[in-house]
Amino acid sequence: MGKKDKLIITIAPTGNVPTKEMNPNTPITTDEIVEDIIKCRELGASIAHIHVRDENGEPTCDRERYKEILDKLEEKNCDIITQLSTGARGGGNTIEWRGQMLDLNAEMASLSTGSSNFATKVNANSFDLIKELADKMYTNNIKPELEAFDLGMIDNAKILVKEGVLKEPLHFNLVMNVKGSARGTPKNLLHMIESLPEGSTFTVSGIGASQVPMLTMSMIMGGHTRTGLEDTILYDKGVIATNTMLVERILGLAKEIGREIATPDEARRILGL
Amino acid sequence: MGKKDKLIITIAPTGNVPTKEMNPNTPITTDEIVEDIIKCRELGASIAHIHVRDENGEPTCDRERYKEILDKLEEKNCDIITQLSTGARGGGNTIEWRGQMLDLNAEMASLSTGSSNFATKVNANSFDLIKELADKMYTNNIKPELEAFDLGMIDNAKILVKEGVLKEPLHFNLVMNVKGSARGTPKNLLHMIESLPEGSTFTVSGIGASQVPMLTMSMIMGGHTRTGLEDTILYDKGVIATNTMLVERILGLAKEIGREIATPDEARRILGL
Repeated sequence: MGKKDKLIITIAPTGNVPTKEMNPNTPITTDEIVEDIIKCRELGASIAHIHVRDENGEPTCDRERYKEILDKLEEKNCDIITQLSTGARGGGNTIEWRGQMLDLNAEMASLSTGSSNFATKVNANSFDLIKELADKMYTNNIKPELEAFDLGMIDNAKILVKEGVLKEPLHFNLVMNVKGSARGTPKNLLHMIESLPEGSTFTVSGIGASQVPMLTMSMIMGGHTRTGLEDTILYDKGVIATNTMLVERILGLAKEIGREIATPDEARRILGL
Repeated sequence: MGKKDKLIITIAPTGNVPTKEMNPNTPITTDEIVEDIIKCRELGASIAHIHVRDENGEPTCDRERYKEILDKLEEKNCDIITQLSTGARGGGNTIEWRGQMLDLNAEMASLSTGSSNFATKVNANSFDLIKELADKMYTNNIKPELEAFDLGMIDNAKILVKEGVLKEPLHFNLVMNVKGSARGTPKNLLHMIESLPEGSTFTVSGIGASQVPMLTMSMIMGGHTRTGLEDTILYDKGVIATNTMLVERILGLAKEIGREIATPDEARRILGL
């Protein structure tokens, strides 16, 4: 990582929590998700962090839904790096369920390296589950993005490297300000960044009101940025966001801070894909 | 907290993990546990952090076992502060199971304020479970010791104060170096101590090889100390510990660092029991 690296923008358009009721701009169907990803790619996003929903709009890990999105992005010749979520809120917690999409033709997938709380449930990721998901990712040539919701998840990643489960260089997403794990304060983020294994790359998610300070701090410290309705449904107090508005804000901040924007191929080189 | 406060030593004689096979000095039966607590009280421990085992030596939350220990301590006129574990490794994960002992005549109980990993399972404590355990503690005039295995659990405690679930002043145990949560480094401990809500008291547990550095740092920074076979079965490389040996080491370190030892009544005043 370094301040001179180009900035990778990840778009997380949907997540597991937002609904049309909460924000009518939330893309829910595979067509809506693909449309938002393509728009954000045109603006400058180089990674799409993808969650899928079932026919009732509920979070799922359904392989077929993921395949639909990947196929549609390919049809449209979209060169964005695809990153599939294996998160704990996709409707089941077995390796079979949570890892079912990992044989698809994606370049990255998310991998939480520990457990924490969400507002209404436990973000449960045992070491056994982490190992099985990681094995399946490496077998399919998928690079894990390590989702660290708290300090211990960074320490766990170091253990998993020693145990041969994870391969360096690691790439982290520091997920700040989820209710139930580390709050999105500059001090917490600084401590987490300083705790990363040498040679790692990292991006930052800032949930809710922590969005701008956390992402700005990441840019200043040589990290990358994730944005999208998954992380905040509001652009500002009382202002409903769209995915493109959120990406546009990052572009403006990056310009002021002096970070050029990475293309997908540049992001591939930075991440060693 | 302050460097001039007397030092509270908590003895955690048993925990959920140690067995006689791992360390023959591990107290497993209620008689053995009571005997170790009394010996450690005589040396200077003022809180007993109690776990119980079933007839097979397996961890349990069985109310009757806890009652046996409390009754036996009372019979022996032992004035130590009793702190009952409500931890996630006691054989079940419902509020009924984990909170079954909270109507007993104890002064404190442990309360984890978030989720993390243990080596072989998830340390699962949802917000709902935390709230129900906390309610039952306050109803029975039991002060919770907040077990923070990671940074987010301190941030969660702050949320729980705002929501009216926890009452200040808070008392924390910073549990350092469990495999699956924050590693026991001075930098992590410093960050966690600096993240505590103003006016809180805290103790520190240092698991395994982190025992001496973490507890020493706590003493230097005005915190308290927990020790016992729950936290480390070795006194040093290749040297099997006993509970009394571990307390004696704390006494020696406290003397050098200049911390006097609190009696149970002094500990009650420090903790506002």
